[in-house]
Amino acid sequence: MTIQNSIRNIVFIGAGNVATHLAVALNKKGFKIIQVYSHSKKSASILASRVKASPTADLSEISKIADLYIISVSDNALTEISSRIFLKDKLVVHTSGSHDISILKGISSRYGVFYPLQTFSKSRNPDFTKIPVCIEAKKKEDEKILMHIAMKLSNDVRVINSASRRIIHIAAVFACNFTNFMYSSADKILLEKKIPFDILKPLIIETAKKIISEKPSEVQTGPARRGDLKIMEKHLKMIDDKDLRELYKIISKQIYKTYNK
Amino acid sequence: MTIQNSIRNIVFIGAGNVATHLAVALNKKGFKIIQVYSHSKKSASILASRVKASPTADLSEISKIADLYIISVSDNALTEISSRIFLKDKLVVHTSGSHDISILKGISSRYGVFYPLQTFSKSRNPDFTKIPVCIEAKKKEDEKILMHIAMKLSNDVRVINSASRRIIHIAAVFACNFTNFMYSSADKILLEKKIPFDILKPLIIETAKKIISEKPSEVQTGPARRGDLKIMEKHLKMIDDKDLRELYKIISKQIYKTYNK
Repeated sequence: MTIQNSIRNIVFIGAGNVATHLAVALNKKGFKIIQVYSHSKKSASILASRVKASPTADLSEISKIADLYIISVSDNALTEISSRIFLKDKLVVHTSGSHDISILKGISSRYGVFYPLQTFSKSRNPDFTKIPVCIEAKKKEDEKILMHIAMKLSNDVRVINSASRRIIHIAAVFACNFTNFMYSSADKILLEKKIPFDILKPLIIETAKKIISEKPSEVQTGPARRGDLKIMEKHLKMIDDKDLRELYKIISKQIYKTYNK
Repeated sequence: MTIQNSIRNIVFIGAGNVATHLAVALNKKGFKIIQVYSHSKKSASILASRVKASPTADLSEISKIADLYIISVSDNALTEISSRIFLKDKLVVHTSGSHDISILKGISSRYGVFYPLQTFSKSRNPDFTKIPVCIEAKKKEDEKILMHIAMKLSNDVRVINSASRRIIHIAAVFACNFTNFMYSSADKILLEKKIPFDILKPLIIETAKKIISEKPSEVQTGPARRGDLKIMEKHLKMIDDKDLRELYKIISKQIYKTYNK
């Protein structure tokens, strides 16, 4: 059997945002999802019906005849589930940025990671062709299989080991989670004065687009970058919220330090 | 004379990024830029040649016959320049987010603000139609003139007073300057392990695009949002750089506090 057709049937363990978008994308590319497990019967059913699979909320009912098992659950749940299922010599992968590949070693002799580096939300359909997929496998043959599957979805597939993936995940926390918190902090500042957030949207999009062609450290702007202490003091006096003031102070201090030596 | 043709000749005081993009955009819309001042003769010449104006580096040489004077310089320079020129009853505006309209009151009896809310860089051509322009004028007639000019450039023109504009500027510091610092922090983390930054680009673009349709506080994700203390501790142990660790700790603490009450 060639790599090309060695994977036919897939079981999804998990039915959250990552599992949903990944299952739908794989299904569209011709892979058969035969079963979806979730500890919530309802979540399992919703995803299962979208990809014509059968749902289950019982770990002991997980099919033994699939070619690939994709565990896509929260990091905490992954630890627990890994100790509760056994799939012998079936290929099993998780989709976590922060967990080591070895967390799966008790489940099967063939294990790996399939980590799509993107922020998924219910309401948005991602373009999978542009999502970097980081793969890793215990065995070289399985790496080839994962590579083959990932390349059907994405134009950017990289073999990344667990140590590097953890670093990428931390960087992603800054670039995505912390960035979004800057957006909601801005929203909070405007909301207090009843100014609609939409005024910032073009600025936010342009700030993100800049880094496509420029190194972020080279396009840093703002009062802290210029070393404009007067404006910074003025701003600090105008921010009523203690937490927002703390953020302003610490981030400005670090920017100032970086650019005004 | 109607508002439509009351502004023919414009003088630019300043030749930085904002001045450049604004002068070029106005020029394209049929306004005549007759002169560009910059304390750097070279900068004045570069912009002047792009918009077929004459350059000067001497404040005393500024033309007295223009219909509109746009002062687009750094916040510090604005304070200084405002005390050094006098234009009697000519319409004068500045483009600063943080300075009050009244900083111009010594220059002329007719003054205002023309603040395009965007981050401008040399290498990128902004689509002015999508840039919110905040205008303010001492006199109602001048507000109409500024409105007319701004609407030739942008589909989003708002009359915003100085107090609100300052708030918007602070929010913009979070949404743009601090966000960009999150990007460069992510870059720094990856660089140490020689992982190319481009792996984060699709994530950064998607994180920004999400806020077009969603409220940022409702799409917050990540370990701090989930209250995953284990992962956060693990991350903190892995971040060698003291400053990055401080950022991680404080922003995570605030996200945690916001979502895990």
